[in-house]
Amino acid sequence: MTSILKTIYSPQDLQNLKIPQLQILAQEIREKIVETVAVTGGHLAPNLGVVELTLALHRVFNTSVDRIIWDVGHQSYVHKLLTGRQSQFGTLRQYGGISGFPRPDESVHDAFGTGHSSTSISAALGMALARDLKGEEYSVVAVIGDGSMTGGMAFEALNHAGHLQKNLIVVLNDNEMSIAPNVGALSGYLSRLRTDPKYYRSKDEIADLLHKIPHGAKLLKVVDRLKDGLKYLVVPGMFFEELGFTYLGPVDGHDLKAVMTLLQQAKSANGPVLVHVLTQKGRGYKPAESNPDRFHGVGPFDVETGNIKKAEGGPPSYTEVFGKTLVKLARDNEKIVGITAAMPGGTGLNLFAKEYPARYFDVGIAEQHAITMAAGLAASGYRPVTAIYSTFMQRAYDQVLHDVCLQNLPVTFALDRAGLVGDDGPTHHGVFDLSFLRNIPNLVIVAPKDENELQHALHTAILHPGPMAVRYPRGAGTGIELDRELKALPLGKGEVLRKGEDVLLLAVGNLVEEALKAADALAAEGVRAAVVNPRFIKPLDRELILTYARLTRNVVTIEEHVLMGGFGSAVLELLESAGLADCKVKRLGIPDSFVEHGKPGILKANLGLNAEEIVKTVLNRSSGVKKEFKFKALRR
Amino acid sequence: MTSILKTIYSPQDLQNLKIPQLQILAQEIREKIVETVAVTGGHLAPNLGVVELTLALHRVFNTSVDRIIWDVGHQSYVHKLLTGRQSQFGTLRQYGGISGFPRPDESVHDAFGTGHSSTSISAALGMALARDLKGEEYSVVAVIGDGSMTGGMAFEALNHAGHLQKNLIVVLNDNEMSIAPNVGALSGYLSRLRTDPKYYRSKDEIADLLHKIPHGAKLLKVVDRLKDGLKYLVVPGMFFEELGFTYLGPVDGHDLKAVMTLLQQAKSANGPVLVHVLTQKGRGYKPAESNPDRFHGVGPFDVETGNIKKAEGGPPSYTEVFGKTLVKLARDNEKIVGITAAMPGGTGLNLFAKEYPARYFDVGIAEQHAITMAAGLAASGYRPVTAIYSTFMQRAYDQVLHDVCLQNLPVTFALDRAGLVGDDGPTHHGVFDLSFLRNIPNLVIVAPKDENELQHALHTAILHPGPMAVRYPRGAGTGIELDRELKALPLGKGEVLRKGEDVLLLAVGNLVEEALKAADALAAEGVRAAVVNPRFIKPLDRELILTYARLTRNVVTIEEHVLMGGFGSAVLELLESAGLADCKVKRLGIPDSFVEHGKPGILKANLGLNAEEIVKTVLNRSSGVKKEFKFKALRR
Repeated sequence: MTSILKTIYSPQDLQNLKIPQLQILAQEIREKIVETVAVTGGHLAPNLGVVELTLALHRVFNTSVDRIIWDVGHQSYVHKLLTGRQSQFGTLRQYGGISGFPRPDESVHDAFGTGHSSTSISAALGMALARDLKGEEYSVVAVIGDGSMTGGMAFEALNHAGHLQKNLIVVLNDNEMSIAPNVGALSGYLSRLRTDPKYYRSKDEIADLLHKIPHGAKLLKVVDRLKDGLKYLVVPGMFFEELGFTYLGPVDGHDLKAVMTLLQQAKSANGPVLVHVLTQKGRGYKPAESNPDRFHGVGPFDVETGNIKKAEGGPPSYTEVFGKTLVKLARDNEKIVGITAAMPGGTGLNLFAKEYPARYFDVGIAEQHAITMAAGLAASGYRPVTAIYSTFMQRAYDQVLHDVCLQNLPVTFALDRAGLVGDDGPTHHGVFDLSFLRNIPNLVIVAPKDENELQHALHTAILHPGPMAVRYPRGAGTGIELDRELKALPLGKGEVLRKGEDVLLLAVGNLVEEALKAADALAAEGVRAAVVNPRFIKPLDRELILTYARLTRNVVTIEEHVLMGGFGSAVLELLESAGLADCKVKRLGIPDSFVEHGKPGILKANLGLNAEEIVKTVLNRSSGVKKEFKFKALRR
Repeated sequence: MTSILKTIYSPQDLQNLKIPQLQILAQEIREKIVETVAVTGGHLAPNLGVVELTLALHRVFNTSVDRIIWDVGHQSYVHKLLTGRQSQFGTLRQYGGISGFPRPDESVHDAFGTGHSSTSISAALGMALARDLKGEEYSVVAVIGDGSMTGGMAFEALNHAGHLQKNLIVVLNDNEMSIAPNVGALSGYLSRLRTDPKYYRSKDEIADLLHKIPHGAKLLKVVDRLKDGLKYLVVPGMFFEELGFTYLGPVDGHDLKAVMTLLQQAKSANGPVLVHVLTQKGRGYKPAESNPDRFHGVGPFDVETGNIKKAEGGPPSYTEVFGKTLVKLARDNEKIVGITAAMPGGTGLNLFAKEYPARYFDVGIAEQHAITMAAGLAASGYRPVTAIYSTFMQRAYDQVLHDVCLQNLPVTFALDRAGLVGDDGPTHHGVFDLSFLRNIPNLVIVAPKDENELQHALHTAILHPGPMAVRYPRGAGTGIELDRELKALPLGKGEVLRKGEDVLLLAVGNLVEEALKAADALAAEGVRAAVVNPRFIKPLDRELILTYARLTRNVVTIEEHVLMGGFGSAVLELLESAGLADCKVKRLGIPDSFVEHGKPGILKANLGLNAEEIVKTVLNRSSGVKKEFKFKALRR
């Protein structure tokens, strides 16, 4: 079947193919992607949408010299297949395999690493500036979706690129037409008069005004009769033209020849060019075409039926519990509003959106705006819940600090996907949030140990008169029964889950379960471990932790987070502030390096984020310090 | 003189004034602001530019119910004078006095706290949503400068507001015309043909195209003759109209009546409105009019002459040393490029800009884009130096982490204004950077102890093959002589400045000087303090610090930074990782709350960030632990 695809070892091999052959190749690529992602999971619909576009890009540009930057990067599968990674394609997103995103360390054809949205034009402009400084000649192309274009930094980059007028190509991969201009052009000019009630009384005033402008009289006549036609005519691309870009398009993104022609024009143009390409998400695979959202990012599925393989039964995900709890809370509290940055499904806020559409706001991929808009709502008496993944909250750091916490406004930050997220890898792991949030005054941080505590934590956050972050992981909960009644967790209070005198185990969130397992294992070895669920990462339960630290003089912390400045450091700070110098502490967490992609289970095992490692740590430390000691001797 | 101003206790008192009286009032306000800022220092030119605009806003809107959000907020002095803060105006920006920025805790007329740029439209939209949810009726107005409009989040908010079509007024305070559209409108529509070389050969093709469009033939004729006139006619406001806003203006911002009329129109309009107001920075005070940049933010000056009072002689500022060093380095290294986000003067990059204009880039108020563009340059072999204040780097956190450090790209982050900045207060103190940067893998952080070490640190950063942050304070250096030859600092290596066996003093940056003073004072008390300049906050000099920690078993850290996750925590982590349990540590720094405005000297004294506090800490601790001990007994 895949006879042409098998002959493509590098983009160079595309150059001799004729259009019909490329069209066959496109079909082969679609099949390859569908059959692979059906097994590995991945971003299916976005890649099916850019098959022809990617082929055209590799025909018109030579990525051995030209640079293509894939915004977000989850649409780079076709590119990977064409740039020497066919044989590894089956390892997509698997531990040790190729990444689901562009990675310069994976291929010279990957000019820039991406993962988060809206970065491509900035990176491309930097490369264009470098090229011109060196006096070299090649093309720099950013491929960006219409969704990513709503991110502020994409605008910052367009604005700057339009000003500099360097050669730069931005391919706008528009798969939803959601950037279609919504306001007229010439009618815009007339707005000053339109909104002035006098306009309706004095038609002559417009005439007077137009007569003051060169050729205004003629224009008036044209405007009168052509207004609608002209509106349509003028609008396409105006937005980009005003930013200094030459606008090309729109073009059918599945018409290979047309796309190539337009790209060729862009390549030979001077200054920044925007090429508007219309594509269909999921193109060529019926189940994805009819349900592109469902097939945007997808787990393993059946190719024939399009049925997504799902573990039957099983506990609900944290996301689901969050979504349902919010709906429940919103019933009795009309001040609750829900805000997402283009992730209604991923965050579980879709449930809230369905029940309370008037109180639900999707701001687009615009985390900064989401947070400060929430601050505005909170300053007006509302209780906004901003559901943003931990990794994406990095994009709104100043807004959290400067707009919400400095003013001590009651905004809830629901940090889904905190910890290791798995297949998406280093761009998406939520393992920095405790460090970058913990230093912000006024902010409370709670990390529920399971989905039952999550619902109470959310309730607590909304009751709290200041900002609170609720941090919880990706994936299924523990399966614990959910309390019917929501209760407020006492602020800054942890709970003792297991008493013990030899060592204190302190774990964050769902790792509390591992701490309990470790305590069981340690008990079998004669070590009596206390297990405290701190619940609140900030403020810490000073009294409780110090009590057990003083008792055991031996503390082990564990967190799915970097060790630099994380929970363990907070515990160290607490002990220091209490002057508790002679207490041994061992912090388990993620060392100072980025974590690759792979199943969370594998990653956690590698990093030693589990009960076994806790046990090993406790046992090794005691034997390490004084080899003849039995575990009981840990006590003081 | 200030007879009318003295009668204004609240905006209500403006309502009965006639235009000529308001004009006199405007003059009185200007005098009041000039004479006050001449003493206190502050943002002069921006406030002189908005006198009439502010008066008009308070005439048309009632800030007891309506909400005005001042973007950045340094232009809120006139507003403060009109809203009951005349008597406190002399305390502007002084410790314990009124803030130089809007503060809801200072007045009910301050709807939202600001300080950083580009937040106002988001906050205003949040308030507009709250209003509509509550079914109330009042106006929400964001006042934003043309500079702030280049920040991405302003665009995110415009885009969202245009979509929602809620009543919302954005006043664009345009004082430099720098948002003037730079590309034609109708000519934009024709770009597809323009960039196609065939266009020039076949004029008929355009005609053919236009004939396909309703009324295209007539349009063609008009286009032929009116192109230039039409371009001018169509462009104003188009950008905002396409985003769903009604555009009003432009209007002369010093014509009180005209501004009031336009604001009145905006108030009665439906949906989001943008009011384009043209103002002159420094208006009414000749020295500021002729040198608005110099008088943007200014220290005390002589009202008569406009001469800015400057300490004669004195050591150069860190900023100046940074700027000069960069110029020096750039002479021998053509790969160095300099990037600022609209702060060439503040960062000292103006010196570089003058010498190497082709390698200098001012991206506007767009920190996110600045960093990722730098990543693009670094990925292409350049050595970008991004000079961004510590507090503003918060706005590019994800770009530092995800675009630069994840790819280990050699970008230098020059973090000026790290530590307490003084008069600007909590929105501007750079006291979070170590926590939010330290957790990022691959990033090196260096904090030079003086301006001489700063130049070496910058040299080191540019030589380093990965990302490095150089952190230095606002204001004058220590006056130390600058080495002529730049040298590379060994990575992660500190230096011993004073040997001692009783206690180890570890200070960050310019606080090293305080540590040395403290060591002197302690010596007089018989305590032998070791002073180590760690230089690198990350990676720490493990060997050196551990050696002295083991020797003294007594460590004091001091930093102009929050204690949560800062340098002291890094030291705690180091000791933990080395298993050094029985070492006393006391961390001095900023506790978990925001620091108000005031002279840095006052703030530091309050926070105990000086030699005295170090001495006290060392002496108290020893006496606290065992009262009968002499200081010598501190040794183990």
